[in-house]
Amino acid sequence: MEWAMATLDLAQDVVSLTAALVDIESVSTGEQEIADSVEAALAALSHLDVVRFGHTIVARTTLGRDERVVIAGHLDTVPVNANLPSRLDGDLLYGLGSCDMKGGVAVALRLAATLPAPSRDITFVFYEAEEIEARHNGLGRLARERPELLVADFAILMEPSDAVVEAGCQGTLRVDVTVRGERAHSARAWMGSNAIHAVAPVLQRLVEYVPRTPRIDGLTYHEGLNAVGISGGVAGNVIPDECVVTVNYRFAPSKTEDEAADVVRRVLAGFEVTVSDSAPGALPGLAHPAAAAFVAMVGRDPQPKFGWTDVARFSALGVPAVNYGPGDPSVAHQREEYCDIARILECEQTMRAWLGA
Amino acid sequence: MEWAMATLDLAQDVVSLTAALVDIESVSTGEQEIADSVEAALAALSHLDVVRFGHTIVARTTLGRDERVVIAGHLDTVPVNANLPSRLDGDLLYGLGSCDMKGGVAVALRLAATLPAPSRDITFVFYEAEEIEARHNGLGRLARERPELLVADFAILMEPSDAVVEAGCQGTLRVDVTVRGERAHSARAWMGSNAIHAVAPVLQRLVEYVPRTPRIDGLTYHEGLNAVGISGGVAGNVIPDECVVTVNYRFAPSKTEDEAADVVRRVLAGFEVTVSDSAPGALPGLAHPAAAAFVAMVGRDPQPKFGWTDVARFSALGVPAVNYGPGDPSVAHQREEYCDIARILECEQTMRAWLGA
Repeated sequence: MEWAMATLDLAQDVVSLTAALVDIESVSTGEQEIADSVEAALAALSHLDVVRFGHTIVARTTLGRDERVVIAGHLDTVPVNANLPSRLDGDLLYGLGSCDMKGGVAVALRLAATLPAPSRDITFVFYEAEEIEARHNGLGRLARERPELLVADFAILMEPSDAVVEAGCQGTLRVDVTVRGERAHSARAWMGSNAIHAVAPVLQRLVEYVPRTPRIDGLTYHEGLNAVGISGGVAGNVIPDECVVTVNYRFAPSKTEDEAADVVRRVLAGFEVTVSDSAPGALPGLAHPAAAAFVAMVGRDPQPKFGWTDVARFSALGVPAVNYGPGDPSVAHQREEYCDIARILECEQTMRAWLGA
Repeated sequence: MEWAMATLDLAQDVVSLTAALVDIESVSTGEQEIADSVEAALAALSHLDVVRFGHTIVARTTLGRDERVVIAGHLDTVPVNANLPSRLDGDLLYGLGSCDMKGGVAVALRLAATLPAPSRDITFVFYEAEEIEARHNGLGRLARERPELLVADFAILMEPSDAVVEAGCQGTLRVDVTVRGERAHSARAWMGSNAIHAVAPVLQRLVEYVPRTPRIDGLTYHEGLNAVGISGGVAGNVIPDECVVTVNYRFAPSKTEDEAADVVRRVLAGFEVTVSDSAPGALPGLAHPAAAAFVAMVGRDPQPKFGWTDVARFSALGVPAVNYGPGDPSVAHQREEYCDIARILECEQTMRAWLGA
């Protein structure tokens, strides 16, 4: 019996291809079918070397060009929310993953199929499990296990950016601030010490903190130090002996994780601070010739990326990377997510011009 | 087949009787056996009128005295914690309920059995379900359904007070303070409004609040306004749009619940405050002749009661009430709870002297 696999026709126009990709359900951990389809379509192209790791596909040209670029996109989506199959409504293509990020994947697949001799060698990466815990991430696995496959002069991650170059990304650090007190019956509060009251100066310091907006490579980043969680309390008649504030620091990519932790410890000096989670940012790297040429081709001012994205994985390998894709990031993960078809066409055209022989 | 009921010998000494009561397990909602035993022992005494409601027993003398007093105690305990059966160790009787409050119940049962002609008419109340949600409370049920049975000039609730008169009780009020903001991705915090940060002034006002210590009937009460819970947060990368602080106000019995709510609203003016729970305090009522005579007999300075107790149920019926019992309140609800046998003997002696013909 044959495996019921959707056949992907890479010769069709990029909008139809986007719709075809949306129609292959691929919620994180369920990427088998879409990965099989992508692998089969790429394996049919003689100018590409194709390898697969789990549900992650790597396809490379090996033309011996002076420069190599990575073009990457994840195949998975957030869970279905009554938003399948795809639906074209005027200029907009609706459906799960249309924005995040099957429009970008379609552009990359079209380039893979139609540019047998690009001006720069290309490594296409279509990977699994971006929308769930980082340990499952297919690009992360590749970076750990086969970093040589990601070696390049520049990388484009086709995450939704509204067809603007979003350069680098900020780092992120989470800490728990634990404030302690002493339990007592709330009718005899003076016999204890209220840990929730003792949190007041922690919050006040966060309120008073003035976030930096450093300029890097001509881009203005925007840091932030915010409480994202708070919990404390034992019972309705007990003076609480512990209160924990979870604080998230978003920091410009010019800082290391250690430097970021130092900033937070300085702001919250005198309190018990424990780092629970961190990820480094990624410098924009726009000075690199391949990046500069790409930015010029896009023709719009590049913007800083505030959120953390997988570009940081390239940055950690020493590869400058930007986000650039057709979707509007503000509709990602929404039930009514869509992608403007004009943006998909524009992205394909821009990248084709940049990579054209 | 006969119901396997423990036989309570009210002729034995009060310490042995306490031990016998401890040995009848009576965790809240499991008071059947102890209530049966108490009812049977009291029904055998011809000088008492005995009635039962659920697992609550009321036994009264009807001698036509000028004054009537209530002597009350609950029959239930908190859950078993490897602290049964009772165990005498030197001067201390250990075991679940020894402190809270079978020592007091034993004293009351001894008085019931041995004072056929007391100087004041007595209404003994042995009730169920004090240690669980208020709606199950046997004294509360009596107050609602048969308030005439609680009519008296004075009431003594034999809760553990270390053989000191603890007069009246403070009221308690709980409010939720809800602070709202606007969600945003924490990498773009400036697009939202952080509800946890906005809680800083709420906590600051609680920190700065100076609790009153009003004097009533010569007793100094001690109010308190405290956060007893706090929660907020959506996810580690989201600026939170809501934070709720639960605040508990303990107020002197000279205030009504409405006055107490006004105080909290005034302190937290400008914030969204919702009352979730409240119970009035109880005035000490030490000016009443029966109360004054009792205090004189005890021979120690009466103390204010800071926590809320069932004395407030008497107060609500217009009956002045105090807490007075042999246990040390600081060991109540502890696994190693105990009662000093000297205190049990002292309580019996004091009350016998006060009620003696």
